[in-house]
Amino acid sequence: MQRALDINRTRFADWYQAVVRDADMAETSPVRGAMVIKPWGYGVWEQIQQELDRRIKATGHENCYFPMFIPLSFIAKEAQHVEGFAKEMAIVTHHRLKTIDGKLQPDPDARLEEPLVVRPTSETIIGDAFSRWVRSYRDLPLLINQWANVVRWEMRPRLFLRTTEFLWQEGHTAHATAEEAVAETMKMLEVYRSFSEDYLAMPVIAGEKPENERFPGAEATYSIEAMMQDGKALQAGTSHFLGTHFAEAQGIKFQDDAGTITFCNTTSWGVSTRLIGGVIMTHGDDDGLRLPPAIAPKQIVIVPMLRDKPEDADVLAYCESLAAALSSIHVLGAPVRVLLDTKKIKSAEKRWNWVRRGAPIIVEIGPRDAAGGNVTFMRRDSLRDGDKVKSIACTRAEFLEEKAAQILAEIQHSLYAEAKVRLDANIKTGVTDWAGVEDYFKGSDDEFKGWLKVSWSKPSGAELEKVDTKLKALKLTIRNAPLQQPDSFAPCLFTGAPGVQEILIGRAY
Amino acid sequence: MQRALDINRTRFADWYQAVVRDADMAETSPVRGAMVIKPWGYGVWEQIQQELDRRIKATGHENCYFPMFIPLSFIAKEAQHVEGFAKEMAIVTHHRLKTIDGKLQPDPDARLEEPLVVRPTSETIIGDAFSRWVRSYRDLPLLINQWANVVRWEMRPRLFLRTTEFLWQEGHTAHATAEEAVAETMKMLEVYRSFSEDYLAMPVIAGEKPENERFPGAEATYSIEAMMQDGKALQAGTSHFLGTHFAEAQGIKFQDDAGTITFCNTTSWGVSTRLIGGVIMTHGDDDGLRLPPAIAPKQIVIVPMLRDKPEDADVLAYCESLAAALSSIHVLGAPVRVLLDTKKIKSAEKRWNWVRRGAPIIVEIGPRDAAGGNVTFMRRDSLRDGDKVKSIACTRAEFLEEKAAQILAEIQHSLYAEAKVRLDANIKTGVTDWAGVEDYFKGSDDEFKGWLKVSWSKPSGAELEKVDTKLKALKLTIRNAPLQQPDSFAPCLFTGAPGVQEILIGRAY
Repeated sequence: MQRALDINRTRFADWYQAVVRDADMAETSPVRGAMVIKPWGYGVWEQIQQELDRRIKATGHENCYFPMFIPLSFIAKEAQHVEGFAKEMAIVTHHRLKTIDGKLQPDPDARLEEPLVVRPTSETIIGDAFSRWVRSYRDLPLLINQWANVVRWEMRPRLFLRTTEFLWQEGHTAHATAEEAVAETMKMLEVYRSFSEDYLAMPVIAGEKPENERFPGAEATYSIEAMMQDGKALQAGTSHFLGTHFAEAQGIKFQDDAGTITFCNTTSWGVSTRLIGGVIMTHGDDDGLRLPPAIAPKQIVIVPMLRDKPEDADVLAYCESLAAALSSIHVLGAPVRVLLDTKKIKSAEKRWNWVRRGAPIIVEIGPRDAAGGNVTFMRRDSLRDGDKVKSIACTRAEFLEEKAAQILAEIQHSLYAEAKVRLDANIKTGVTDWAGVEDYFKGSDDEFKGWLKVSWSKPSGAELEKVDTKLKALKLTIRNAPLQQPDSFAPCLFTGAPGVQEILIGRAY
Repeated sequence: MQRALDINRTRFADWYQAVVRDADMAETSPVRGAMVIKPWGYGVWEQIQQELDRRIKATGHENCYFPMFIPLSFIAKEAQHVEGFAKEMAIVTHHRLKTIDGKLQPDPDARLEEPLVVRPTSETIIGDAFSRWVRSYRDLPLLINQWANVVRWEMRPRLFLRTTEFLWQEGHTAHATAEEAVAETMKMLEVYRSFSEDYLAMPVIAGEKPENERFPGAEATYSIEAMMQDGKALQAGTSHFLGTHFAEAQGIKFQDDAGTITFCNTTSWGVSTRLIGGVIMTHGDDDGLRLPPAIAPKQIVIVPMLRDKPEDADVLAYCESLAAALSSIHVLGAPVRVLLDTKKIKSAEKRWNWVRRGAPIIVEIGPRDAAGGNVTFMRRDSLRDGDKVKSIACTRAEFLEEKAAQILAEIQHSLYAEAKVRLDANIKTGVTDWAGVEDYFKGSDDEFKGWLKVSWSKPSGAELEKVDTKLKALKLTIRNAPLQQPDSFAPCLFTGAPGVQEILIGRAY
C-alpha cells in the first residue's frame, strides 16, 4: 500500500497542508486568513477545551464572558499595548448596511462615534470590569478565564498556526502582591506544560522569554516551546506577569486591611487552536495524522467489511455489540470513545480515511471475524511493518478485557516518547561562538535544524537589539530561557561577558 | 427578614434588572448593548451548553466552527435575508490602526476592499462551505452545529434578552428532500421543547410562526414560546425549514443515485443566552433568582457559621466532610455540585448572597450542628413561611442518604409545576371578536396580561399585514400556531371567514 505523503521528501509546509486537508481538520474560507474548522478538527478542540477547562477550574478559576468589541479609547490607554497590537486589528466603524445606488454598503448615517476594535486579546476590556469588581483585599485574588474567539489580522495565514480569527482561552487574574501574581503566572505555565505533555503527548520546554519577546505591557512573559518535526519551534502557550501596568492604566485598585489603597498586580495567560497545529506537526507521519488517544474525538473506529451480501447483517450486529461493549471501558479517565462507521462508501476507503485522520485504533470486522468471535485491528502509532500495513488479530474477549485499554494507553505513551527523543536529541549544547551558530544553521531552509542551547549575559535594551538583529539575519529567535538552569555558565556567546543564563535559539513558527 | 424585591409592587422591568444584578449574573459594559456575563451567569450558560450539546450530538449532529466575518457580497446574495438583517449589523471596514496627528484611528491605507459583516447568523457563510462539502446523496444528510457569538445591533438593549453581542448555538443541515428537512426542523423543535421543560423547568408552547414572523428567507419558522411572570411571551428558541432558498443562492447541490443534480433542502435552528433571561423571568421571586437544580452551577451551597472562635475549626472540618460526601451523590444524572463558601465575609451576608443567586439548597452549619451531627438548610423554592425564612433540620445521615437528592429533584419539579400552572391558567380561550381582544388587553402596560388563543383563517400577504397592524396598535403579536390543534374551529376572529387554525396572541419580549 503506497503512503499518501512522505514527510522527508516533501517540503514540510506542503506536507503539513496535505495532512490538514487529508485528515479533514480544517480548510481555508472565503474570508482571507480565517479558517473553517471541520468536525474532526473541532472534535480535537473540544477534547482540549474539556480537559484544560477542568484543570483551569481545579486551580480556582471561574469562567466569564466579556464583549468582543473594545472601544478604541481602551486600547489607546495602554501605550505599550497599542504599540504591540496596533498593526493588526479588525475595526468596526458602522452598525448598519444600506442599499445605495443599488449596492449594499455601510450606511454613512450609521457611522460609530467611536470605532470598535475586535479583541486581539482582552486585557483592556477585562481590566475595566476588574476596576469595578475589586474594592477590598477580600475580593482578591480575582481568578477569571474566558473561552473566546479573537482576531489578529494576518498577512501570511496558515491553518491553525496563524489565522486572522482563532479560538482560545485567556486567563486574567488580579492579586494583592507581585509575589502572588508571579506565583500565579508560574502555576499556569505549569498547567500548560503538564497539559501539553500529558494530554497532547507534546513535550515542551518551559521558560522565560527575553525582554524583546515579551507580551506588550508585560513585566515578564513565560512560554512553553515545542519542537516540530522540521526542527522549528512552536510557541504553544504563554503566561504573563503584568505587574501593575494594566492596573494603573485601568484603575484596578484595592484597599488592604490597613486601609491603604494600592494597585493590583495582574496576570494573563492563554493557549489557542494553534495547539492543534502543534499536534499535527508533532505526531503526523507519511500516512497523515496520528492523534494521541487523550484528544482523539474517536479513539477506536470500527469499519464493518460489508459486501451487499446476506452475512452483512451478522457483521453489523457483531460490530454494534462490540461498539457497545467498548463504550463501557474506561481509558485515561473517561469512557472509550468509539465510532461504528456505517457511511455508505467502500470499506477500504473508510480504512484510509481513518488512517489519515489519525484514529488511534482502527478495527476491521469481516464475516470471518464475526463468525469466529475475533477482532482484527491496526494501531495508528505503528501502522506499518516496512511498507506493509500491520494487522493484529485477537479474540473479542481479549480485545475487550485487555488489548483495547492497554493499547490506547501505549499509544498515548509511545507518541510522547517518540517526540521526546526527537526534542532531546536535537538541542545542541557546547556552541560558544557565533561561527558555531552559523555553522549549525547553515544550508537550505527545508533541511532539519534543531535548537541551540547557549550561554549569554542577558543583555538589555540596545545591546539586546543588536543580538536580535544578528539572530534575525539567520531567521533565528531566542525561544526562551528554560526554567531549569545549570549552576555555572560559559561566557556569553554574543558579548563575551560572563554568562548568567542559558537560552534556546532556533527557527520558529 | 425583609424581602429584597417585590415582584408584584415593582415595575417588572425594574424587578428583572434588580434580580440580574443581585444574583450577580451579568452587567452592562462600556460597549453599548454588549454585556459582561459574570461567573454565576456564565455557570448557568455552561450547564445549558453541556446538556444541549449532548442532546444535539445524540441526534446525530457534529460541531464545527466557521469564520465570524462574512463578506458583504454573501449577505447581498440572499435578497430576503438582507431585508431581514440589513438594519442591524456590525461592519468591519479596516484592518489596522494608525496614530495620525497624535490620535489613534483606523488607518486609511488599511481599508478593506470588501467590508466584512460580523455574523448576525451564519446561513450564508456555512452555506458556502456546504456547497463545497456536498457532492452526492451519500454526503447527505449533512448535520452541523456551531457554538458561537453573534452580533445584531440593538438600540434598546436588555441584559440577556436583547444584547448587541450574544452567545448561541446554530444548527445548519442539508437534506436530499423537503420531507427530510421538515422532519429535521420538527425534531430540533422537539429537542428545544423537551430541553426547556425538563432542564430549564420552563414550560413552553411549540408551534409555527405566522408568515410575517418568519426568519428572513425561511419557508416555515417554528418556535417555542414561554410565558414570563408579567404574562409576556418570550420566544425561547426557533427552528427553520429553509426549503431550497439558501441552497439556490449558494449552490448547495447534490447528485442523486440516478445521476440527477438537485438543490438541497436546508434547515437552521438556534437558542441563545436569551434562555437565561427566560429562566430569571420564569423562576425569580421577591428574594431574587431561583435556579432549577439541573442548571444551577452549584446545587447545594454550604455556609459555615464562623465566629473567630476555636470551635470554627470543627465547623469547617464538618462542612468539608459534608461537601465531600455530597459530591459523591448523583442527582438528575450527574454528581451533585456542591460549594463550601469560605469567603471572608459574614455568614448572614453569604446566606443572602446565595438566596439572591438562587442556589437550590443553602445549608448553614453552626457549632451545634457540627457537634450534634445535624444539617440545617433552606429550600430556595419555598424559602419562607409567611415572612419568616423556613429552616429545616435533619441528621447528617438523613440529609446524605435521602433528603439532598430527594429535595433537589422536588425543587426541579416544583419550579416547573408552578410555571406550568401559570401558563395554563393564563391562556384565555373563547374570545371571538376584536372587542374581546381589546377588553382582555386593556389597562396599564404594567398590569399582568396572559395570552389569547383564538381561531383564524390564516390570511396571507396584504390581508395578514392588516391583521398585524391591528395587533401592533395594541402592542400585540401572534406568537405561534401551537402544534396541538383542535378538530374544528370557530370563525376567524379577524376576517369572519371559516377558521382553519388556532393561534396565540400576546405581548412579547
